[in-house]
Amino acid sequence: MQYVKIKDSIVEQIDSGMLSPRQKLPAERKLAESFDTTRVTLREALSLLEAEGRIYREDRRGWFISPEPLRYDPTQTLNFSNMAAAQNRTPKTELIAAKGILADKQAVRLLNLQPFSDVYRVDRVRYLEDRPVVYVTNYIRPELFPNLLDFDLSNSLTDIYREHFGMVYLKIRYRISTSSLLGETAQALRATSGTPAMVVERVNYNQQGELIDCDIEYWRHDAISIESIAELQR
Amino acid sequence: MQYVKIKDSIVEQIDSGMLSPRQKLPAERKLAESFDTTRVTLREALSLLEAEGRIYREDRRGWFISPEPLRYDPTQTLNFSNMAAAQNRTPKTELIAAKGILADKQAVRLLNLQPFSDVYRVDRVRYLEDRPVVYVTNYIRPELFPNLLDFDLSNSLTDIYREHFGMVYLKIRYRISTSSLLGETAQALRATSGTPAMVVERVNYNQQGELIDCDIEYWRHDAISIESIAELQR
Repeated sequence: MQYVKIKDSIVEQIDSGMLSPRQKLPAERKLAESFDTTRVTLREALSLLEAEGRIYREDRRGWFISPEPLRYDPTQTLNFSNMAAAQNRTPKTELIAAKGILADKQAVRLLNLQPFSDVYRVDRVRYLEDRPVVYVTNYIRPELFPNLLDFDLSNSLTDIYREHFGMVYLKIRYRISTSSLLGETAQALRATSGTPAMVVERVNYNQQGELIDCDIEYWRHDAISIESIAELQR
Repeated sequence: MQYVKIKDSIVEQIDSGMLSPRQKLPAERKLAESFDTTRVTLREALSLLEAEGRIYREDRRGWFISPEPLRYDPTQTLNFSNMAAAQNRTPKTELIAAKGILADKQAVRLLNLQPFSDVYRVDRVRYLEDRPVVYVTNYIRPELFPNLLDFDLSNSLTDIYREHFGMVYLKIRYRISTSSLLGETAQALRATSGTPAMVVERVNYNQQGELIDCDIEYWRHDAISIESIAELQR
């Protein structure tokens, strides 16, 4: 199939270093010409490269070569900034919204709440090298963190929990699945609607075994590689 | 956007139980008619439902409602059959090929081998309720498992390791990413080329800390939900 060949040829150019991370690809018309193919076939090759996480599209800006994914260990509390810094990446966090709300369906399910309970909801977008890579929503039990909303929530939540409330994560339940970016989430990540996403849901427990918060993370799927080590007992 | 509305309406029919797991959707032409829309718009809705893991396509057979995903804990050695049985699913394993080969790029990278080392390669397809859901390739160090290829490898490899070689996994390094199904892998899973995939790579160590084998799993992404619990030390 011709589009697989075009895909392989672009992968080769990436692997050999001829195309470098974050580089913009030429316009689709020019690319189609250079491969002596139609735009339909070229688009099939591009969407395969996107599915494999080798390129990504920014809305109205075009296609770019994906940098190395961030290695992410869901069993660690290492916060986003420290994790990025440890991998020589440049992190940034943008606070989208922080407010008290009545628990919606998601919050009820993940935090085991009664419908219409009070809950904090914090929405943030995380960047690497000025590229938005993940949309994170935290739901937090307000009775454990009075006046949490008065803090600067573009900083690490886990740092605030520890320093101001003496609370740390001691157990994390997590779930990883795939989905696609839609609506506001897509927009905040400069993605076109329907872009593939890796979804990480975590429910976090403190030293007393109490459920304290949860986070739902919609990642640009090419920007993350989930890696961990398990030591087994027997 | 109209296709998001169509998607939501089909999701509602699934959630309410009007459409049941494994049920076949009507032909695209009929569906488009029933939503009073074009086939182009309908296809956008269907590909969104596919991305969200709510429906799946079998090559030349059409679209089906996805059953519950299998909950999969990469930190457990629980083999596929036991895992499926524990969740009231009906597993089946098909052996595609088992042979001694010279290590290819993947085997060299994952098992830390010299190029052209001898290695066993075992390819299998796993089914749930007669639906192929994952294509698994194991690379195995032959010096640790002489005459492994004489066993019936449609059975659990970890059972054979334990019962006949006294070897179990004590440490697992794993990596989870997303990609797409292509070529023979797609065909074996009855998927059209380019279908989204969840990729799980595991490198496994025995009681002596020796690297013994690795597996590369290409999952139909709707068929798997990765779930685990981490207990943190401090």
